Amino acid sequence: MKSLDQFINQYKPLVESRLKSAIAELEAPKALKDSMLYSLEAGGKRIRPLLLFATLEAFKCKPEIGLDAAAAIEMVHTYSLIHDDLPSMDDDDLRRGKPTNHKIYGEATAILAGDALLTHSFKMIGNISPETASADTKLVLINKLSEASGAEGMVGGQVADMEGEGKQLSLKELEYIHINKTGRLLTYSVLAGAELAEASEQVKDKLQVFAYHIGLAFQIRDDILDLEGTVEQIGKPVGSDTDNDKSTYPSLLTLEGAKKALQNHIDHAKQELVTTNLNTSILEQITDLIGLRTS
Amino acid sequence: MKSLDQFINQYKPLVESRLKSAIAELEAPKALKDSMLYSLEAGGKRIRPLLLFATLEAFKCKPEIGLDAAAAIEMVHTYSLIHDDLPSMDDDDLRRGKPTNHKIYGEATAILAGDALLTHSFKMIGNISPETASADTKLVLINKLSEASGAEGMVGGQVADMEGEGKQLSLKELEYIHINKTGRLLTYSVLAGAELAEASEQVKDKLQVFAYHIGLAFQIRDDILDLEGTVEQIGKPVGSDTDNDKSTYPSLLTLEGAKKALQNHIDHAKQELVTTNLNTSILEQITDLIGLRTS
Repeated sequence: MKSLDQFINQYKPLVESRLKSAIAELEAPKALKDSMLYSLEAGGKRIRPLLLFATLEAFKCKPEIGLDAAAAIEMVHTYSLIHDDLPSMDDDDLRRGKPTNHKIYGEATAILAGDALLTHSFKMIGNISPETASADTKLVLINKLSEASGAEGMVGGQVADMEGEGKQLSLKELEYIHINKTGRLLTYSVLAGAELAEASEQVKDKLQVFAYHIGLAFQIRDDILDLEGTVEQIGKPVGSDTDNDKSTYPSLLTLEGAKKALQNHIDHAKQELVTTNLNTSILEQITDLIGLRTS
Repeated sequence: MKSLDQFINQYKPLVESRLKSAIAELEAPKALKDSMLYSLEAGGKRIRPLLLFATLEAFKCKPEIGLDAAAAIEMVHTYSLIHDDLPSMDDDDLRRGKPTNHKIYGEATAILAGDALLTHSFKMIGNISPETASADTKLVLINKLSEASGAEGMVGGQVADMEGEGKQLSLKELEYIHINKTGRLLTYSVLAGAELAEASEQVKDKLQVFAYHIGLAFQIRDDILDLEGTVEQIGKPVGSDTDNDKSTYPSLLTLEGAKKALQNHIDHAKQELVTTNLNTSILEQITDLIGLRTS
Protein backbone atom coordinates (compact mmCIF):
# COMPACT_ATOMS: atom_id res chain seq x y z
CA MET A 1 0.00 0.00 0.00
CA LYS A 2 1.28 3.42 -0.96
CA SER A 3 1.86 5.71 2.01
CA LEU A 4 0.53 9.25 2.06
CA ASP A 5 4.09 10.55 2.34
CA GLN A 6 5.07 8.80 -0.88
CA PHE A 7 1.93 10.12 -2.55
CA ILE A 8 2.61 13.68 -1.43
CA ASN A 9 6.27 13.47 -2.45
CA GLN A 10 5.20 12.33 -5.89
CA TYR A 11 2.31 14.70 -6.65
CA LYS A 12 2.97 17.89 -4.71
CA PRO A 13 6.08 18.77 -6.78
CA LEU A 14 4.12 17.90 -9.92
CA VAL A 15 1.40 20.48 -9.34
CA GLU A 16 3.93 23.05 -8.11
CA SER A 17 5.91 22.67 -11.28
CA ARG A 18 2.73 22.94 -13.39
CA LEU A 19 1.78 26.16 -11.60
CA LYS A 20 5.20 27.58 -12.31
CA SER A 21 5.14 26.67 -15.99
CA ALA A 22 1.60 28.01 -16.42
CA ILE A 23 2.72 31.44 -15.23
CA ALA A 24 5.98 31.31 -17.19
CA GLU A 25 3.97 30.73 -20.39
CA LEU A 26 1.96 33.94 -19.98
CA GLU A 27 2.76 36.93 -22.15
CA ALA A 28 2.10 39.59 -19.55
CA PRO A 29 3.86 42.39 -17.64
CA LYS A 30 6.67 41.03 -15.46
CA ALA A 31 5.37 42.61 -12.24
CA LEU A 32 2.03 40.85 -12.71
CA LYS A 33 3.60 37.46 -13.37
CA ASP A 34 5.95 37.90 -10.42
CA SER A 35 3.08 38.75 -8.13
CA MET A 36 0.99 35.78 -9.33
CA LEU A 37 3.93 33.42 -8.90
CA TYR A 38 4.94 34.79 -5.51
CA SER A 39 1.69 33.67 -3.92
CA LEU A 40 1.49 30.42 -5.87
CA GLU A 41 4.96 29.58 -4.54
CA ALA A 42 4.27 30.68 -0.97
CA GLY A 43 3.97 27.02 -0.04
CA GLY A 44 1.11 25.36 1.73
CA LYS A 45 -0.01 21.78 1.87
CA ARG A 46 -1.65 21.75 -1.59
CA ILE A 47 -4.48 19.88 0.07
CA ARG A 48 -6.92 20.61 -2.78
CA PRO A 49 -4.69 19.26 -5.55
CA LEU A 50 -3.86 16.26 -3.35
CA LEU A 51 -7.56 15.57 -2.81
CA LEU A 52 -8.12 15.62 -6.55
CA PHE A 53 -5.17 13.31 -7.22
CA ALA A 54 -6.20 10.98 -4.39
CA THR A 55 -9.75 10.79 -5.76
CA LEU A 56 -8.40 9.76 -9.15
CA GLU A 57 -6.22 7.18 -7.39
CA ALA A 58 -9.35 5.88 -5.67
CA PHE A 59 -10.81 5.13 -9.11
CA LYS A 60 -7.50 3.57 -10.20
CA CYS A 61 -7.07 6.37 -12.73
CA LYS A 62 -3.68 7.97 -13.22
CA PRO A 63 -3.58 10.99 -10.88
CA GLU A 64 -1.60 12.83 -13.57
CA ILE A 65 -4.74 13.29 -15.69
CA GLY A 66 -5.95 15.75 -13.04
CA LEU A 67 -2.86 17.94 -13.23
CA ASP A 68 -4.35 20.94 -15.03
CA ALA A 69 -7.56 20.84 -13.01
CA ALA A 70 -5.48 20.64 -9.82
CA ALA A 71 -3.42 23.65 -10.90
CA ALA A 72 -6.64 25.54 -11.71
CA ILE A 73 -8.04 24.83 -8.25
CA GLU A 74 -4.82 25.94 -6.58
CA MET A 75 -4.97 29.17 -8.63
CA VAL A 76 -8.48 29.86 -7.38
CA HIS A 77 -7.47 29.07 -3.80
CA THR A 78 -4.41 31.33 -4.09
CA TYR A 79 -6.40 34.23 -5.56
CA SER A 80 -8.81 33.95 -2.63
CA LEU A 81 -5.93 34.16 -0.14
CA ILE A 82 -4.45 37.22 -1.88
CA HIS A 83 -7.79 39.06 -1.80
CA ASP A 84 -8.62 37.90 1.77
CA ASP A 85 -5.34 39.31 3.05
CA LEU A 86 -5.94 42.82 1.62
CA PRO A 87 -6.08 45.79 3.98
CA SER A 88 -9.82 46.24 3.33
CA MET A 89 -10.47 42.57 4.18
CA ASP A 90 -8.45 40.74 6.87
CA ASP A 91 -5.51 43.17 6.63
CA ASP A 92 -2.91 40.45 7.16
CA ASP A 93 0.80 41.18 6.86
CA LEU A 94 1.88 37.57 7.03
CA ARG A 95 0.71 34.41 5.28
CA ARG A 96 2.47 31.12 6.00
CA GLY A 97 5.16 33.17 7.72
CA LYS A 98 5.93 35.27 4.63
CA PRO A 99 4.84 38.82 3.81
CA THR A 100 1.44 38.85 2.09
CA ASN A 101 1.23 39.68 -1.60
CA HIS A 102 0.17 43.33 -1.20
CA LYS A 103 3.02 43.90 1.27
CA ILE A 104 5.48 43.05 -1.51
CA TYR A 105 3.73 44.18 -4.70
CA GLY A 106 1.33 46.83 -3.45
CA GLU A 107 -2.41 46.64 -3.16
CA ALA A 108 -3.30 47.37 -6.78
CA THR A 109 -1.03 44.68 -8.23
CA ALA A 110 -2.15 42.21 -5.56
CA ILE A 111 -5.81 42.72 -6.51
CA LEU A 112 -4.96 42.31 -10.20
CA ALA A 113 -2.78 39.25 -9.60
CA GLY A 114 -5.76 37.66 -7.84
CA ASP A 115 -8.04 38.63 -10.72
CA ALA A 116 -5.61 37.16 -13.24
CA LEU A 117 -5.24 33.87 -11.32
CA LEU A 118 -9.01 33.47 -11.11
CA THR A 119 -9.40 34.29 -14.81
CA HIS A 120 -6.66 31.90 -15.87
CA SER A 121 -8.04 28.99 -13.86
CA PHE A 122 -10.97 28.65 -16.27
CA LYS A 123 -8.67 28.48 -19.26
CA MET A 124 -6.54 25.83 -17.52
CA ILE A 125 -9.63 23.63 -17.42
CA GLY A 126 -10.85 24.64 -20.86
CA ASN A 127 -7.49 23.52 -22.26
CA ILE A 128 -7.38 20.04 -20.69
CA SER A 129 -6.44 17.66 -23.50
CA PRO A 130 -9.35 15.98 -25.33
CA GLU A 131 -7.87 12.55 -24.52
CA THR A 132 -8.26 13.32 -20.81
CA ALA A 133 -11.71 14.86 -20.78
CA SER A 134 -14.51 15.33 -23.28
CA ALA A 135 -15.80 18.83 -24.05
CA ASP A 136 -18.90 18.06 -21.98
CA THR A 137 -16.81 16.99 -18.98
CA LYS A 138 -14.75 20.17 -19.21
CA LEU A 139 -17.91 22.28 -19.26
CA VAL A 140 -19.17 20.48 -16.15
CA LEU A 141 -15.82 21.19 -14.47
CA ILE A 142 -15.98 24.86 -15.47
CA ASN A 143 -19.57 25.36 -14.34
CA LYS A 144 -18.96 23.64 -11.03
CA LEU A 145 -15.76 25.61 -10.44
CA SER A 146 -17.70 28.83 -11.02
CA GLU A 147 -20.43 27.72 -8.61
CA ALA A 148 -18.01 26.55 -5.93
CA SER A 149 -15.92 29.71 -6.00
CA GLY A 150 -18.42 32.46 -6.84
CA ALA A 151 -21.35 34.24 -5.19
CA GLU A 152 -23.06 30.94 -4.42
CA GLY A 153 -19.89 29.46 -2.94
CA MET A 154 -16.58 30.81 -1.69
CA VAL A 155 -17.17 34.52 -2.36
CA GLY A 156 -20.63 34.31 -0.78
CA GLY A 157 -19.07 32.63 2.27
CA GLN A 158 -16.49 35.39 2.55
CA VAL A 159 -19.20 38.08 2.50
CA ALA A 160 -21.17 36.18 5.16
CA ASP A 161 -17.96 35.88 7.19
CA MET A 162 -17.42 39.64 7.06
CA GLU A 163 -21.05 40.30 7.99
CA GLY A 164 -20.68 37.95 10.96
CA GLU A 165 -17.70 39.73 12.48
CA GLY A 166 -18.36 41.10 15.95
CA LYS A 167 -21.68 39.20 16.10
CA GLN A 168 -22.56 36.11 18.10
CA LEU A 169 -23.38 33.59 15.36
CA SER A 170 -25.43 30.44 15.70
CA LEU A 171 -23.81 27.12 14.81
CA LYS A 172 -25.96 27.09 11.67
CA GLU A 173 -24.72 30.51 10.58
CA LEU A 174 -21.13 29.52 11.29
CA GLU A 175 -21.56 26.36 9.23
CA TYR A 176 -23.05 28.32 6.31
CA ILE A 177 -19.92 30.46 6.29
CA HIS A 178 -17.49 27.58 6.40
CA ILE A 179 -19.34 25.27 4.05
CA ASN A 180 -19.13 28.06 1.49
CA LYS A 181 -15.89 29.86 2.30
CA THR A 182 -13.73 26.75 2.67
CA GLY A 183 -15.86 23.68 2.08
CA ARG A 184 -17.06 24.28 -1.45
CA LEU A 185 -13.62 24.38 -3.04
CA LEU A 186 -12.48 21.33 -1.04
CA THR A 187 -15.60 19.51 -2.19
CA TYR A 188 -14.98 20.64 -5.74
CA SER A 189 -11.47 19.14 -5.60
CA VAL A 190 -12.94 15.73 -4.82
CA LEU A 191 -15.80 16.02 -7.32
CA ALA A 192 -13.50 17.23 -10.09
CA GLY A 193 -11.55 14.00 -9.62
CA ALA A 194 -14.79 12.04 -9.76
CA GLU A 195 -15.86 13.82 -12.97
CA LEU A 196 -12.53 13.07 -14.64
CA ALA A 197 -12.87 9.44 -13.52
CA GLU A 198 -16.39 9.34 -15.00
CA ALA A 199 -17.89 8.24 -11.69
CA SER A 200 -21.53 7.23 -11.42
CA GLU A 201 -23.99 9.72 -9.90
CA GLN A 202 -24.35 7.43 -6.89
CA VAL A 203 -20.63 7.41 -6.14
CA LYS A 204 -20.42 11.16 -6.74
CA ASP A 205 -23.14 11.65 -4.15
CA LYS A 206 -21.17 9.61 -1.63
CA LEU A 207 -17.99 11.52 -2.34
CA GLN A 208 -19.88 14.77 -1.91
CA VAL A 209 -20.94 13.68 1.58
CA PHE A 210 -17.35 12.65 2.33
CA ALA A 211 -16.06 16.03 1.15
CA TYR A 212 -18.71 17.91 3.15
CA HIS A 213 -17.39 16.31 6.34
CA ILE A 214 -13.71 16.86 5.60
CA GLY A 215 -14.50 20.48 4.68
CA LEU A 216 -16.03 21.13 8.08
CA ALA A 217 -13.32 19.11 9.83
CA PHE A 218 -10.73 21.25 8.07
CA GLN A 219 -12.25 24.45 9.38
CA ILE A 220 -12.78 23.18 12.93
CA ARG A 221 -9.15 22.08 13.01
CA ASP A 222 -8.22 25.58 11.79
CA ASP A 223 -10.12 27.18 14.65
CA ILE A 224 -8.51 24.82 17.19
CA LEU A 225 -5.05 25.53 15.75
CA ASP A 226 -5.69 29.24 16.09
CA LEU A 227 -5.94 28.64 19.85
CA GLU A 228 -3.46 25.81 20.39
CA GLY A 229 -0.87 26.16 17.61
CA THR A 230 2.38 28.09 17.67
CA VAL A 231 3.24 31.04 15.43
CA GLU A 232 5.72 28.76 13.65
CA GLN A 233 3.04 26.17 12.94
CA ILE A 234 0.30 28.45 11.69
CA GLY A 235 2.40 31.27 10.19
CA LYS A 236 0.33 34.02 11.80
CA PRO A 237 -0.26 35.30 15.33
CA VAL A 238 -1.89 32.79 17.71
CA GLY A 239 -5.39 33.75 18.82
CA SER A 240 -6.01 36.18 15.95
CA ASP A 241 -9.60 34.96 15.55
CA THR A 242 -10.33 35.89 19.17
CA ASP A 243 -8.62 39.25 18.65
CA ASN A 244 -10.70 39.86 15.52
CA ASP A 245 -13.85 39.05 17.48
CA LYS A 246 -14.77 36.17 15.17
CA SER A 247 -17.21 33.42 16.04
CA THR A 248 -15.38 30.08 15.95
CA TYR A 249 -16.21 26.47 16.75
CA PRO A 250 -14.38 26.64 20.10
CA SER A 251 -16.17 29.88 21.01
CA LEU A 252 -19.55 28.28 20.24
CA LEU A 253 -18.91 24.71 21.41
CA THR A 254 -16.01 25.11 23.88
CA LEU A 255 -12.61 23.74 22.95
CA GLU A 256 -13.58 20.24 24.07
CA GLY A 257 -16.83 20.42 22.11
CA ALA A 258 -14.99 21.57 19.00
CA LYS A 259 -12.58 18.64 19.30
CA LYS A 260 -15.50 16.26 19.61
CA ALA A 261 -17.20 17.80 16.54
CA LEU A 262 -13.95 17.48 14.61
CA GLN A 263 -13.68 13.77 15.48
CA ASN A 264 -17.32 13.27 14.48
CA HIS A 265 -16.76 14.76 11.04
CA ILE A 266 -13.59 12.72 10.55
CA ASP A 267 -15.47 9.54 11.50
CA HIS A 268 -18.40 10.32 9.22
CA ALA A 269 -16.08 11.12 6.34
CA LYS A 270 -14.28 7.80 6.68
CA GLN A 271 -17.51 5.82 7.08
CA GLU A 272 -18.82 7.36 3.85
CA LEU A 273 -15.62 6.47 2.04
CA VAL A 274 -15.93 2.81 2.96
CA THR A 275 -19.35 2.61 1.29
CA THR A 276 -17.92 3.69 -2.08
CA ASN A 277 -15.98 0.41 -2.48
CA LEU A 278 -13.20 2.39 -4.10
CA ASN A 279 -9.47 2.21 -3.55
CA THR A 280 -9.63 4.91 -0.87
CA SER A 281 -6.48 4.36 1.19
CA ILE A 282 -4.90 7.69 0.27
CA LEU A 283 -8.17 9.59 0.76
CA GLU A 284 -8.47 8.03 4.22
CA GLN A 285 -4.95 9.06 5.12
CA ILE A 286 -5.66 12.63 3.92
CA THR A 287 -8.75 12.61 6.13
CA ASP A 288 -6.63 11.70 9.14
CA LEU A 289 -4.13 14.37 8.18
CA ILE A 290 -6.89 16.98 8.12
CA GLY A 291 -7.99 15.94 11.59
CA LEU A 292 -4.50 16.03 13.05
CA ARG A 293 -2.71 18.68 11.01
CA THR A 294 -0.56 21.17 12.87
CA SER A 295 -0.21 23.76 10.10
CA MET B 1 -32.77 49.08 -43.26
CA LYS B 2 -32.89 48.90 -39.50
CA SER B 3 -31.56 52.00 -37.77
CA LEU B 4 -29.06 51.78 -34.95
CA ASP B 5 -31.56 53.47 -32.64
CA GLN B 6 -34.12 50.74 -33.29
CA PHE B 7 -31.45 48.11 -32.77
CA ILE B 8 -30.33 49.62 -29.48
CA ASN B 9 -33.91 50.05 -28.27
CA GLN B 10 -34.53 46.39 -28.98
CA TYR B 11 -31.37 44.76 -27.60
CA LYS B 12 -30.10 47.02 -24.81
CA PRO B 13 -33.13 46.33 -22.58
CA LEU B 14 -32.80 42.63 -23.38
CA VAL B 15 -29.29 42.34 -22.01
CA GLU B 16 -30.10 44.59 -19.07
CA SER B 17 -32.99 42.39 -18.12
CA ARG B 18 -30.83 39.25 -18.49
CA LEU B 19 -28.20 40.76 -16.19
CA LYS B 20 -30.87 41.50 -13.63
CA SER B 21 -32.36 38.01 -13.74
CA ALA B 22 -28.93 36.37 -13.58
CA ILE B 23 -28.20 38.12 -10.28
CA ALA B 24 -31.72 37.53 -8.94
CA GLU B 25 -31.26 33.79 -9.49
CA LEU B 26 -28.16 33.62 -7.27
CA GLU B 27 -28.44 32.12 -3.81
CA ALA B 28 -26.02 34.45 -2.10
CA PRO B 29 -25.85 37.06 0.69
CA LYS B 30 -28.08 40.05 -0.09
CA ALA B 31 -25.30 42.63 0.31
CA LEU B 32 -23.22 40.82 -2.31
CA LYS B 33 -26.09 40.56 -4.80
CA ASP B 34 -26.99 44.23 -4.22
CA SER B 35 -23.42 45.31 -4.83
CA MET B 36 -23.14 43.22 -8.02
CA LEU B 37 -26.44 44.55 -9.33
CA TYR B 38 -25.68 48.16 -8.41
CA SER B 39 -22.77 48.32 -10.82
CA LEU B 40 -24.48 46.23 -13.50
CA GLU B 41 -27.36 48.71 -13.41
CA ALA B 42 -25.19 51.82 -13.33
CA GLY B 43 -25.99 52.32 -17.00
CA GLY B 44 -23.56 52.78 -19.83
CA LYS B 45 -23.91 52.23 -23.52
CA ARG B 46 -23.63 48.42 -23.38
CA ILE B 47 -21.36 48.77 -26.37
CA ARG B 48 -19.89 45.27 -25.92
CA PRO B 49 -23.24 43.45 -25.89
CA LEU B 50 -24.37 45.59 -28.83
CA LEU B 51 -21.24 44.66 -30.79
CA LEU B 52 -21.96 40.99 -30.17
CA PHE B 53 -25.61 41.33 -31.21
CA ALA B 54 -24.67 43.39 -34.28
CA THR B 55 -22.12 40.78 -35.33
CA LEU B 56 -24.79 38.09 -35.16
CA GLU B 57 -27.08 40.36 -37.18
CA ALA B 58 -24.29 40.69 -39.75
CA PHE B 59 -24.45 36.90 -40.23
CA LYS B 60 -28.26 37.06 -40.37
CA CYS B 61 -28.40 35.06 -37.12
CA LYS B 62 -30.88 36.00 -34.44
CA PRO B 63 -29.05 38.40 -32.09
CA GLU B 64 -30.95 36.77 -29.21
CA ILE B 65 -28.76 33.68 -29.39
CA GLY B 66 -25.93 35.84 -28.07
CA LEU B 67 -27.82 36.97 -24.98
CA ASP B 68 -26.00 34.93 -22.33
CA ALA B 69 -22.59 35.58 -23.88
CA ALA B 70 -23.43 39.30 -24.03
CA ALA B 71 -24.42 39.28 -20.35
CA ALA B 72 -21.19 37.45 -19.49
CA ILE B 73 -19.11 40.07 -21.31
CA GLU B 74 -20.93 42.90 -19.54
CA MET B 75 -20.25 41.17 -16.21
CA VAL B 76 -16.54 41.04 -16.98
CA HIS B 77 -16.55 44.67 -18.10
CA THR B 78 -18.43 45.71 -14.95
CA TYR B 79 -16.09 43.79 -12.63
CA SER B 80 -13.15 45.57 -14.26
CA LEU B 81 -14.75 48.97 -13.63
CA ILE B 82 -15.43 48.12 -9.96
CA HIS B 83 -11.83 47.05 -9.39
CA ASP B 84 -10.38 49.96 -11.44
CA ASP B 85 -12.27 52.48 -9.32
CA LEU B 86 -10.90 51.16 -6.00
CA PRO B 87 -8.86 53.50 -3.77
CA SER B 88 -5.67 51.52 -4.44
CA MET B 89 -6.23 51.81 -8.20
CA ASP B 90 -7.77 54.93 -9.79
CA ASP B 91 -9.48 55.98 -6.55
CA ASP B 92 -12.58 57.27 -8.31
CA ASP B 93 -15.62 58.44 -6.34
CA LEU B 94 -17.87 58.76 -9.37
CA ARG B 95 -18.62 56.49 -12.31
CA ARG B 96 -21.15 57.60 -14.91
CA GLY B 97 -22.16 60.37 -12.47
CA LYS B 98 -23.03 57.94 -9.68
CA PRO B 99 -21.00 56.99 -6.59
CA THR B 100 -18.62 54.13 -7.33
CA ASN B 101 -19.33 50.68 -5.89
CA HIS B 102 -16.92 50.91 -2.95
CA LYS B 103 -18.36 54.31 -1.99
CA ILE B 104 -21.71 52.61 -1.43
CA TYR B 105 -20.82 49.08 -0.30
CA GLY B 106 -17.31 49.51 1.11
CA GLU B 107 -14.06 48.35 -0.35
CA ALA B 108 -14.20 44.71 0.76
CA THR B 109 -17.66 44.05 -0.68
CA ALA B 110 -16.75 45.92 -3.87
CA ILE B 111 -13.70 43.70 -4.40
CA LEU B 112 -15.80 40.58 -3.77
CA ALA B 113 -18.65 41.76 -6.01
CA GLY B 114 -16.09 42.16 -8.78
CA ASP B 115 -14.69 38.70 -8.07
CA ALA B 116 -18.19 37.20 -8.12
CA LEU B 117 -19.12 38.88 -11.43
CA LEU B 118 -15.94 37.62 -13.07
CA THR B 119 -16.50 34.11 -11.71
CA HIS B 120 -20.13 34.02 -12.80
CA SER B 121 -19.37 35.16 -16.34
CA PHE B 122 -17.75 31.80 -17.13
CA LYS B 123 -20.79 29.90 -15.95
CA MET B 124 -23.06 32.13 -18.04
CA ILE B 125 -21.19 30.92 -21.10
CA GLY B 126 -20.88 27.35 -19.88
CA ASN B 127 -24.66 27.25 -19.54
CA ILE B 128 -25.56 28.51 -23.02
CA SER B 129 -28.18 26.10 -24.36
CA PRO B 130 -26.89 23.21 -26.50
CA GLU B 131 -29.22 24.30 -29.34
CA THR B 132 -27.37 27.62 -29.50
CA ALA B 133 -23.78 26.45 -29.21
CA SER B 134 -21.99 23.11 -29.18
CA ALA B 135 -19.82 22.15 -26.22
CA ASP B 136 -16.74 22.84 -28.36
CA THR B 137 -17.97 26.32 -29.27
CA LYS B 138 -18.63 27.09 -25.62
CA LEU B 139 -15.11 26.00 -24.68
CA VAL B 140 -13.68 28.28 -27.38
CA LEU B 141 -15.78 31.13 -25.98
CA ILE B 142 -14.58 30.39 -22.43
CA ASN B 143 -10.90 30.12 -23.38
CA LYS B 144 -11.01 33.29 -25.43
CA LEU B 145 -12.83 35.18 -22.67
CA SER B 146 -10.15 34.13 -20.22
CA GLU B 147 -7.40 35.24 -22.62
CA ALA B 148 -9.06 38.55 -23.44
CA SER B 149 -9.71 39.49 -19.83
CA GLY B 150 -6.77 37.95 -17.94
CA ALA B 151 -3.02 38.48 -17.59
CA GLU B 152 -2.53 38.34 -21.36
CA GLY B 153 -5.36 40.81 -21.98
CA MET B 154 -7.31 43.29 -19.90
CA VAL B 155 -5.61 42.69 -16.53
CA GLY B 156 -2.18 42.84 -18.17
CA GLY B 157 -3.17 46.13 -19.84
CA GLN B 158 -4.27 47.54 -16.50
CA VAL B 159 -0.92 46.65 -14.89
CA ALA B 160 0.94 48.24 -17.82
CA ASP B 161 -1.29 51.31 -17.46
CA MET B 162 -0.37 51.65 -13.78
CA GLU B 163 3.31 51.19 -14.55
CA GLY B 164 3.09 53.91 -17.19
CA GLU B 165 1.68 56.57 -14.87
CA GLY B 166 3.92 59.60 -14.52
CA LYS B 167 6.10 58.37 -17.40
CA GLN B 168 6.34 59.68 -20.95
CA LEU B 169 5.21 56.67 -22.98
CA SER B 170 5.90 55.99 -26.63
CA LEU B 171 2.94 55.58 -28.97
CA LYS B 172 3.77 51.87 -29.10
CA GLU B 173 3.63 51.55 -25.32
CA LEU B 174 0.39 53.50 -25.19
CA GLU B 175 -1.11 51.22 -27.83
CA TYR B 176 -0.03 48.10 -25.92
CA ILE B 177 -1.93 49.39 -22.91
CA HIS B 178 -5.11 50.22 -24.80
CA ILE B 179 -5.14 47.19 -27.06
CA ASN B 180 -5.11 45.09 -23.92
CA LYS B 181 -6.96 47.18 -21.36
CA THR B 182 -9.89 48.12 -23.60
CA GLY B 183 -9.39 46.58 -27.01
CA ARG B 184 -9.28 42.89 -26.14
CA LEU B 185 -12.74 42.74 -24.59
CA LEU B 186 -14.23 44.81 -27.44
CA THR B 187 -12.59 42.45 -29.91
CA TYR B 188 -13.87 39.48 -27.96
CA SER B 189 -17.42 40.83 -28.22
CA VAL B 190 -17.19 40.77 -32.00
CA LEU B 191 -15.42 37.41 -32.17
CA ALA B 192 -17.86 35.80 -29.75
CA GLY B 193 -20.62 36.74 -32.19
CA ALA B 194 -18.60 35.27 -35.05
CA GLU B 195 -18.04 32.01 -33.09
CA LEU B 196 -21.75 31.68 -32.35
CA ALA B 197 -22.47 32.34 -36.04
CA GLU B 198 -19.94 29.65 -36.99
CA ALA B 199 -17.98 32.06 -39.17
CA SER B 200 -15.10 30.88 -41.35
CA GLU B 201 -11.54 31.51 -40.15
CA GLN B 202 -11.10 34.00 -42.99
CA VAL B 203 -14.09 36.10 -41.95
CA LYS B 204 -13.07 35.88 -38.28
CA ASP B 205 -9.66 37.28 -39.23
CA LYS B 206 -11.32 40.21 -40.98
CA LEU B 207 -13.59 40.88 -38.03
CA GLN B 208 -10.58 40.78 -35.75
CA VAL B 209 -8.93 43.54 -37.79
CA PHE B 210 -12.19 45.52 -37.74
CA ALA B 211 -12.41 45.13 -33.95
CA TYR B 212 -8.77 46.12 -33.48
CA HIS B 213 -9.47 49.44 -35.14
CA ILE B 214 -12.68 50.19 -33.29
CA GLY B 215 -10.93 49.29 -30.02
CA LEU B 216 -8.25 51.90 -30.61
CA ALA B 217 -10.80 54.40 -31.94
CA PHE B 218 -12.80 53.88 -28.75
CA GLN B 219 -9.84 54.75 -26.56
CA ILE B 220 -8.70 57.74 -28.61
CA ARG B 221 -12.25 59.13 -28.46
CA ASP B 222 -12.13 58.56 -24.69
CA ASP B 223 -8.95 60.60 -24.40
CA ILE B 224 -10.41 63.40 -26.54
CA LEU B 225 -13.59 63.42 -24.47
CA ASP B 226 -11.52 63.74 -21.31
CA LEU B 227 -10.32 67.10 -22.71
CA GLU B 228 -13.37 68.33 -24.62
CA GLY B 229 -16.36 66.76 -22.87
CA THR B 230 -18.43 68.16 -20.03
CA VAL B 231 -18.79 66.59 -16.57
CA GLU B 232 -22.39 65.72 -17.51
CA GLN B 233 -21.28 63.89 -20.64
CA ILE B 234 -18.44 61.87 -19.18
CA GLY B 235 -19.69 61.46 -15.61
CA LYS B 236 -16.33 62.37 -14.06
CA PRO B 237 -14.18 65.50 -13.79
CA VAL B 238 -12.93 66.92 -17.12
CA GLY B 239 -9.17 66.69 -17.62
CA SER B 240 -8.65 63.97 -15.00
CA ASP B 241 -6.14 62.15 -17.24
CA THR B 242 -3.96 65.29 -17.33
CA ASP B 243 -4.34 65.67 -13.56
CA ASN B 244 -3.33 62.04 -13.07
CA ASP B 245 -0.27 62.60 -15.24
CA LYS B 246 -1.32 59.93 -17.73
CA SER B 247 0.03 59.63 -21.24
CA THR B 248 -2.85 60.00 -23.70
CA TYR B 249 -3.25 60.19 -27.46
CA PRO B 250 -3.67 64.00 -27.38
CA SER B 251 -0.58 64.38 -25.15
CA LEU B 252 1.46 62.29 -27.59
CA LEU B 253 -0.05 63.38 -30.90
CA THR B 254 -1.60 66.80 -30.09
CA LEU B 255 -5.38 67.10 -30.05
CA GLU B 256 -5.48 67.55 -33.83
CA GLY B 257 -3.24 64.54 -34.33
CA ALA B 258 -5.43 62.43 -32.04
CA LYS B 259 -8.52 63.42 -34.01
CA LYS B 260 -6.80 62.43 -37.24
CA ALA B 261 -5.73 59.07 -35.76
CA LEU B 262 -9.30 58.49 -34.60
CA GLN B 263 -10.65 59.13 -38.10
CA ASN B 264 -8.02 56.81 -39.56
CA HIS B 265 -9.05 53.93 -37.32
CA ILE B 266 -12.74 54.53 -38.08
CA ASP B 267 -12.00 54.51 -41.82
CA HIS B 268 -9.91 51.35 -41.60
CA ALA B 269 -12.56 49.61 -39.52
CA LYS B 270 -15.27 50.37 -42.07
CA GLN B 271 -13.09 49.39 -45.03
CA GLU B 272 -12.42 46.02 -43.40
CA LEU B 273 -16.14 45.49 -42.79
CA VAL B 274 -16.94 45.99 -46.47
CA THR B 275 -14.61 43.14 -47.44
CA THR B 276 -16.53 40.64 -45.29
CA ASN B 277 -19.57 40.77 -47.59
CA LEU B 278 -21.77 40.46 -44.53
CA ASN B 279 -24.88 42.36 -43.60
CA THR B 280 -22.84 44.96 -41.68
CA SER B 281 -25.11 48.02 -41.60
CA ILE B 282 -25.53 47.97 -37.80
CA LEU B 283 -21.81 47.32 -37.22
CA GLU B 284 -21.01 50.31 -39.46
CA GLN B 285 -23.38 52.53 -37.52
CA ILE B 286 -21.80 51.40 -34.23
CA THR B 287 -18.41 52.26 -35.70
CA ASP B 288 -19.61 55.78 -36.46
CA LEU B 289 -21.08 56.03 -32.98
CA ILE B 290 -17.72 55.09 -31.45
CA GLY B 291 -16.04 57.82 -33.47
CA LEU B 292 -18.54 60.50 -32.53
CA ARG B 293 -19.75 59.47 -29.09
CA THR B 294 -20.06 62.17 -26.46
CA SER B 295 -20.29 59.91 -23.41
